[in-house]
Amino acid sequence: MNSVKLAELDWMTYRDRVQDGGCRILLPVGAIEQHGPHMSLNPDVLIPEYIACRVAERSGNMLVAPPIAYGYKSQVKSGGGNFFPGTTCVGGRALEEYAYDVILAYAAHGNREFVLINGHFENSMFLVEAADRAVKHARLSGKEIRVVLLSYWDFISEATIEKVFPDGFSGWAVEHGGVLETSIMLKIHPELVDMAKAVDIPPAEFPPYDVFPPDPSWVPSSGTLSSPAQATAEKGEWILDECIAGIARTFG
Amino acid sequence: MNSVKLAELDWMTYRDRVQDGGCRILLPVGAIEQHGPHMSLNPDVLIPEYIACRVAERSGNMLVAPPIAYGYKSQVKSGGGNFFPGTTCVGGRALEEYAYDVILAYAAHGNREFVLINGHFENSMFLVEAADRAVKHARLSGKEIRVVLLSYWDFISEATIEKVFPDGFSGWAVEHGGVLETSIMLKIHPELVDMAKAVDIPPAEFPPYDVFPPDPSWVPSSGTLSSPAQATAEKGEWILDECIAGIARTFG
Amino acid sequence: MNSVKLAELDWMTYRDRVQDGGCRILLPVGAIEQHGPHMSLNPDVLIPEYIACRVAERSGNMLVAPPIAYGYKSQVKSGGGNFFPGTTCVGGRALEEYAYDVILAYAAHGNREFVLINGHFENSMFLVEAADRAVKHARLSGKEIRVVLLSYWDFISEATIEKVFPDGFSGWAVEHGGVLETSIMLKIHPELVDMAKAVDIPPAEFPPYDVFPPDPSWVPSSGTLSSPAQATAEKGEWILDECIAGIARTFG
Amino acid sequence: MNSVKLAELDWMTYRDRVQDGGCRILLPVGAIEQHGPHMSLNPDVLIPEYIACRVAERSGNMLVAPPIAYGYKSQVKSGGGNFFPGTTCVGGRALEEYAYDVILAYAAHGNREFVLINGHFENSMFLVEAADRAVKHARLSGKEIRVVLLSYWDFISEATIEKVFPDGFSGWAVEHGGVLETSIMLKIHPELVDMAKAVDIPPAEFPPYDVFPPDPSWVPSSGTLSSPAQATAEKGEWILDECIAGIARTFG
Amino acid sequence: MNSVKLAELDWMTYRDRVQDGGCRILLPVGAIEQHGPHMSLNPDVLIPEYIACRVAERSGNMLVAPPIAYGYKSQVKSGGGNFFPGTTCVGGRALEEYAYDVILAYAAHGNREFVLINGHFENSMFLVEAADRAVKHARLSGKEIRVVLLSYWDFISEATIEKVFPDGFSGWAVEHGGVLETSIMLKIHPELVDMAKAVDIPPAEFPPYDVFPPDPSWVPSSGTLSSPAQATAEKGEWILDECIAGIARTFG
Amino acid sequence: MNSVKLAELDWMTYRDRVQDGGCRILLPVGAIEQHGPHMSLNPDVLIPEYIACRVAERSGNMLVAPPIAYGYKSQVKSGGGNFFPGTTCVGGRALEEYAYDVILAYAAHGNREFVLINGHFENSMFLVEAADRAVKHARLSGKEIRVVLLSYWDFISEATIEKVFPDGFSGWAVEHGGVLETSIMLKIHPELVDMAKAVDIPPAEFPPYDVFPPDPSWVPSSGTLSSPAQATAEKGEWILDECIAGIARTFG
Repeated sequence: MNSVKLAELDWMTYRDRVQDGGCRILLPVGAIEQHGPHMSLNPDVLIPEYIACRVAERSGNMLVAPPIAYGYKSQVKSGGGNFFPGTTCVGGRALEEYAYDVILAYAAHGNREFVLINGHFENSMFLVEAADRAVKHARLSGKEIRVVLLSYWDFISEATIEKVFPDGFSGWAVEHGGVLETSIMLKIHPELVDMAKAVDIPPAEFPPYDVFPPDPSWVPSSGTLSSPAQATAEKGEWILDECIAGIARTFG
Repeated sequence: MNSVKLAELDWMTYRDRVQDGGCRILLPVGAIEQHGPHMSLNPDVLIPEYIACRVAERSGNMLVAPPIAYGYKSQVKSGGGNFFPGTTCVGGRALEEYAYDVILAYAAHGNREFVLINGHFENSMFLVEAADRAVKHARLSGKEIRVVLLSYWDFISEATIEKVFPDGFSGWAVEHGGVLETSIMLKIHPELVDMAKAVDIPPAEFPPYDVFPPDPSWVPSSGTLSSPAQATAEKGEWILDECIAGIARTFG
Repeated sequence: MNSVKLAELDWMTYRDRVQDGGCRILLPVGAIEQHGPHMSLNPDVLIPEYIACRVAERSGNMLVAPPIAYGYKSQVKSGGGNFFPGTTCVGGRALEEYAYDVILAYAAHGNREFVLINGHFENSMFLVEAADRAVKHARLSGKEIRVVLLSYWDFISEATIEKVFPDGFSGWAVEHGGVLETSIMLKIHPELVDMAKAVDIPPAEFPPYDVFPPDPSWVPSSGTLSSPAQATAEKGEWILDECIAGIARTFG
Repeated sequence: MNSVKLAELDWMTYRDRVQDGGCRILLPVGAIEQHGPHMSLNPDVLIPEYIACRVAERSGNMLVAPPIAYGYKSQVKSGGGNFFPGTTCVGGRALEEYAYDVILAYAAHGNREFVLINGHFENSMFLVEAADRAVKHARLSGKEIRVVLLSYWDFISEATIEKVFPDGFSGWAVEHGGVLETSIMLKIHPELVDMAKAVDIPPAEFPPYDVFPPDPSWVPSSGTLSSPAQATAEKGEWILDECIAGIARTFG
Repeated sequence: MNSVKLAELDWMTYRDRVQDGGCRILLPVGAIEQHGPHMSLNPDVLIPEYIACRVAERSGNMLVAPPIAYGYKSQVKSGGGNFFPGTTCVGGRALEEYAYDVILAYAAHGNREFVLINGHFENSMFLVEAADRAVKHARLSGKEIRVVLLSYWDFISEATIEKVFPDGFSGWAVEHGGVLETSIMLKIHPELVDMAKAVDIPPAEFPPYDVFPPDPSWVPSSGTLSSPAQATAEKGEWILDECIAGIARTFG
Repeated sequence: MNSVKLAELDWMTYRDRVQDGGCRILLPVGAIEQHGPHMSLNPDVLIPEYIACRVAERSGNMLVAPPIAYGYKSQVKSGGGNFFPGTTCVGGRALEEYAYDVILAYAAHGNREFVLINGHFENSMFLVEAADRAVKHARLSGKEIRVVLLSYWDFISEATIEKVFPDGFSGWAVEHGGVLETSIMLKIHPELVDMAKAVDIPPAEFPPYDVFPPDPSWVPSSGTLSSPAQATAEKGEWILDECIAGIARTFG
């Protein structure tokens, strides 16, 4: 019971760790979403939780909260769209209210510093609203909390991108189920990736707008927005090392 | 990727499994809540998920969804109360809306049969509301879904209770962090239990009402409502065997 | 205009009574729900209101608020289910929000002590949420209120149960429309009971789970979950005397 | 059990009455609100319920539902304002959601015709929204319901006004706790009126706007907006006779 | 950039104007609603905005906020009903929440005094709720704001009514799209009125209740509730002069 | 009354235009937000409305709806942050619910095709949710609507960017109040721009995360995120021409 995962601590140990607001709570927020035929539905949960644990291990004053597993509705141009079997998403209010309540519940234990580690692009604005409202509500009862919101991929440098994509990077927009996420999963959960099923496709191209209901014909039939074919565990390691180091350096 | 956990499948495998509504979705719902100084904060999540997986393994047509980890506010007389450090709970609307959205998201994939396996007493009525609303909403668009809601402990027989509590059973009301949950955790996650820290207390006694704000002096200082001292992994096995068999027999 | 029912006072008399928070507000919360062919739809409202009035009469500092008449959706295993004609229930949010607003409205008059007297099992958790949120909201504006939540039947002793059920008690779970409620109604509103229509059935038996949509075939066709045949006004008196005395003693 | 109040029927009798949508449900909606030092807090509940019962008695196909007792926040220029002790009001959403759920619950029994009899001016627009949403929601599941919304005073003719106010009518706007409501209460609940405490004041005058927070100095200190001094039970009878006849004629 | 419309100022100029709460914010709230075949859909927006601007010009310490353009659902007896093509209305919660957030956003800049100038009768109670909640929420964080709510027509005197309607006034209730609004629009936006299309009808007559769904046959087919035939720009000027002077005098 | 702005039509003209769903409704959605000391608070409203009108003029079957003027909370890294005086924003639910209701109100007139033209980055995800929910709700009552969501800047080509920024483009992220928006405003509303007050700063640089409460020291004190100094009306014309042509070509 000497875990960086707070749910694996007994309450007295937890209490002693968080006393006086001396601990930073890392809260991974993900999604259950298709990532192509070669990968499980949970990379958006597993990756931020993995990163959070590694960051917390480097620090003496961080604990990782159980992830919020179901995230906001997958969008066509960032996640393939909300119509794929397996893509299992909640509405904006449900995510916002749930995250808001979770943040305030940890604040009630005396915690004042939060880092939300997001693994699913579509969550961002609803987490912004949850964080903003939580900060303001806490203030009404005299608590000053501080909530950092980050998406792990924003800690990847140009240099690493060049190393990972020696033949050129198609851009973040189409990195859904592509080299980036697949490489990380190959590193941290190889049992959940089957490269034999990876579909090699050119990067998806989209018109400069969205449409509702979404048009499935916009999306490659595999569900990924670019090809994962060049993914390797080694590339995953490069990416993770940089994200973990960057986040740890900034908040550690 | 041949898991009973649906999040560990790729989307095409999942799609083939759930096609034609032929699959039952088992959704564990738990809580992050103190369970005494001898146990981690997550038994209410881990136990229903464990049971769900074993039930699904016995069946050819069930899949286990990622659990909803944060549950409704712990109450003094069933969970010690919502003021313990580590007890991290959401409000009724957040839980209800989140569970409602999750059920309907799985229904959108063609699933028609759901079993919510609850591990935290306080969740029950909010899951009732989520299930009732989801069924009615699905019907508006012509989908007839069926949601079973169960708490695993309701599958434990009198006979097993007598075997587990040879000196007499103090009643379900005070089984929080006591012999029952501790025995199960000793069986499935011994690394998250430290019997050396178990506090041996008489069963808690409560007045016949609740009060808000709650009065911490009503609750044993250890946080458990009865003594876990007689817990053993063997008792945990008896209990689990019966729950798993009972649930599998009923819904398998 | 010397009533224990606050709605029967003029505002100046009320103001003088509640000044300085010196008064306890008793708020009955019930339901409109079938209770078998031998009884009206309103026992869950009339009983807690009756008890509240008698308790207030014994005390010098209590007032009874107009009841909240419509309660949360009747459940199959506790109230027969939400599909009976006459069972007229609201959703969880409506009840919670309504009760929350009512509590805070009384708090705005200077009241600080509340006792919610519940007459309908299914209301409980939504009243918990209403009470918890009201207490916290009041605190934001510097008011410390205290809300007790009780269900009157929790004040009935084992001894009385044995006296009322000389042939053995089938358990609280099936006491819907049975001896207990019928006896009380025979005592306080005999004109709303017609024992000639009472249906004598064995106690209902239910599987250890709930299902949505509910299955009407689980419920006895009369709507009661056990037989009211042995109900008498005298038994009603025993029960009421004990509940009233117990509640008055605890909060008077 | 041969009542026009549906809550006083057993469910089978109720079921037979409402079968095939052949019954009109009258739902009184009121408020708990100060009405001067000479009158109880509940005229806005008792009056519409009384009218509803008399209307139903004249008709063969109407039933009166239990009133919604707590209404929307009293406004200065129509009810004295929401700051009087005893004025106990709920917010707009709570009233709307509660009324919406109640209407749909009765619709689930097969009822298709509703008459909401309002006794509190401030309720009106929130009942409009509840009715409008309920009609639209019912339609989604193929039910065409029809909800009439009326305030009983709109059925009083010019002739009656002249008879009741021989010295001239100060206008509806200031009839709060004045001759009209007091006369009706003297007729139907004389025990809740004490004319000795009636305060004789000139009609209140207000600026052509509202302000929040309200300014108590705008309101006569008695809480009534005009004088109840000329109220008599006979006038109450005239008013009631006309309202009851008019409503019965229109919807009977 | 020396406008009374705050949205036409740069932020530094605005900041200097509102510093120390020294400025009153005038917020027009309207509706997009049919006003007969002779007039555009936006009088309820344009008129209060016009009045607000003229009032602000006479004062040294007022700014006009961008109007809330979409208002609450048009009602048959005040606006013709919510079923006319072109009548484009939002629900009660949407309006209330939007107005509430807008008021609090201006309060965050240091503003303490607000005047909501309403141009659409049906908005009133939802603005009451928005204002009441905003005042109370602001108070939780130590801000005392004051929100005036007015409908411009309440500043028109009997004398002006007599001048505008020399042949007798049919009453406010049927002034939708009639002489009053049409005259004002002829004065301020003659290009949006085409008197050649004005339909000359007698004032509408309605039963003393409302019904949902609304019955279109209650409403004149032109959509106006009285005849606009006698409207002139000169009458519009008289009305505006009085409203502007009255509001400026009261709040200037 | 031959306007592309639908609010400037009378209802019969509007009705004829939209009959049979033959018209596309363009709905501009903006924000009231500081854009530096050299520009008014309303570019995010005026620009999309201007573009919508020009697009509609080129088409025979489009109408422009009144804009939604108040948008979601300004974020530090895209709009300077929600703490600037003048930045007047609503919460996520208010925006979503308001936009949802507006879309469905236009759908009730028979419209089936919508284009939301967004002028404020932070609105996007809440409009996604509004559109997604509106489409699904409409479908429940048998209406298939189609909602396009676009941000006008996504129609600007690389070629135009190079022409507008001959010395290199700092990226979209910092284009708040910079050359792009300022140039457009110089073209369409020169009276709302004062280039003498434009502050020439290097592009803002931000860390790869967000923090709540926001840290004002991250933002240039002028409020713009890059320098508007090189803005000209001619550049505005280039940008507008391309956006208008592109949108018209795609949806016209």
